[in-house]
Amino acid sequence: MSRLDLFINRMVSQRACLNHAAALTADMPGPVYELGLGNGRTYHHMVEIMPDRDIYVFERAIASHPDSTPPDDMVLLGDVYETLPAALKRFGPTARLIHADLGGHNLAKNDAFARQLSPVIEPLLASGGLMVASDRMYFETLSEIDLPPDAVPGRCFIYRAP
Amino acid sequence: MSRLDLFINRMVSQRACLNHAAALTADMPGPVYELGLGNGRTYHHMVEIMPDRDIYVFERAIASHPDSTPPDDMVLLGDVYETLPAALKRFGPTARLIHADLGGHNLAKNDAFARQLSPVIEPLLASGGLMVASDRMYFETLSEIDLPPDAVPGRCFIYRAP
Repeated sequence: MSRLDLFINRMVSQRACLNHAAALTADMPGPVYELGLGNGRTYHHMVEIMPDRDIYVFERAIASHPDSTPPDDMVLLGDVYETLPAALKRFGPTARLIHADLGGHNLAKNDAFARQLSPVIEPLLASGGLMVASDRMYFETLSEIDLPPDAVPGRCFIYRAP
Repeated sequence: MSRLDLFINRMVSQRACLNHAAALTADMPGPVYELGLGNGRTYHHMVEIMPDRDIYVFERAIASHPDSTPPDDMVLLGDVYETLPAALKRFGPTARLIHADLGGHNLAKNDAFARQLSPVIEPLLASGGLMVASDRMYFETLSEIDLPPDAVPGRCFIYRAP
């Protein structure tokens, strides 16, 4: 399997999991969080499938495609270890859906980041809220749920808050 | 259709067209050219599907993933308007397969680049050789051929030399 195959599997799975999670949480109130904007392709997709939702973007510096740049007041700029706890103070445990694609090239580094980030993300979700991640996360109370049929196991993960 | 959808379609089509073109030219001798290396994901795929072929990479500066970096003697470093004519002098019209993903964000700029680049690419192909491109190209003698069933029309193009 080539790196192109792996990449396609990751992108296809990300889309499938986001579509699935958006449908599962359609009746829940609360905001959506995108951790990391990058090029903005995934944010653009999230806006398309959840047009009526507040989607907050957590990012160090905005460098996205002009078509996929969130409004200023929907960006929480800075280090996630500061901006995520700040969001918890501001919004409480209300998030309906959180997405993160940590996806660097270095798998060991991604895994270390996932371990560090999990306890910071965990309190943000509302009861029944979902976390979609491109890497395995390390939550204490959230449980992993089944992927939709069009996602590739191991390329995407979905966790549900109790 | 979101930018994520478009991107997935482009990547899936690129893979489908490369697999198709590699199969169609399997019995032809001659080298393969990759125009632009980028991250190296597509090069990695080309090496996987054509392990016994000389694959030359044309790039300004190598910035690929360590797993997808070609050997030094397979890289033709510099401006394609110089390195492609140099390759024609060195190898003659022998290329079995040429791939280019010009794919920037700016469609008008991509199209202008495709128009400028087409006459420089055209003489490099052997008779029956194929060009796989992510943008419409402007060749005088090459003809567009049908895409494989798993490619999305408009997201990839295949041209054959007479």
